Amino acid sequence: MILESAILDVRPDATKAFETAFAEAQRIISAMPGYLSHELLNCLENPQRYLLLVRWETLEAHTEGFRGSPEYQRWRELLHHFYEPFPTVEHYQPTFGSFLQ
Amino acid sequence: MILESAILDVRPDATKAFETAFAEAQRIISAMPGYLSHELLNCLENPQRYLLLVRWETLEAHTEGFRGSPEYQRWRELLHHFYEPFPTVEHYQPTFGSFLQ
Repeated sequence: MILESAILDVRPDATKAFETAFAEAQRIISAMPGYLSHELLNCLENPQRYLLLVRWETLEAHTEGFRGSPEYQRWRELLHHFYEPFPTVEHYQPTFGSFLQ
Repeated sequence: MILESAILDVRPDATKAFETAFAEAQRIISAMPGYLSHELLNCLENPQRYLLLVRWETLEAHTEGFRGSPEYQRWRELLHHFYEPFPTVEHYQPTFGSFLQ
């Protein structure tokens, strides 16, 4: 399992529209090969900030499979215009934990 | 469920010692009231970076219960000297996801 993690800072006037768009976008990612699960969470300390966590079977399922797919164009179209600044995406592998998938 | 999230940048010469200390420290947090689960993950793009995700029943279980406990002193003693810079901890509540605990 590889965890994709991205802190998403959304334009302050657009959090509701972002959530509406994400409700559609999550159907795209959930159908991709190698997808395991995802969460979108909202920051208590900063309501314009979200944390996206997506679990993939492998790194390549995200970086090659999803990002190289036609579906990724729709994902970008739905979501990327909300971000300011544009987020950095990182990938993590489990070291310890009670919660590995 | 409230997710505590912290990006931990560990001194480059100390990642193995940090992992050894964390193996002990995770027993402390796992026994706290209101604790649900935790993960420590290692960044593929930057091996000195870890992501700590702890799930709590409530925000206060972390900010008041754990941080106000005698056990927190031992947690600090085990882990805090590894961080450079000292991390920012954020708390998140679920907006969407297939994976809510």
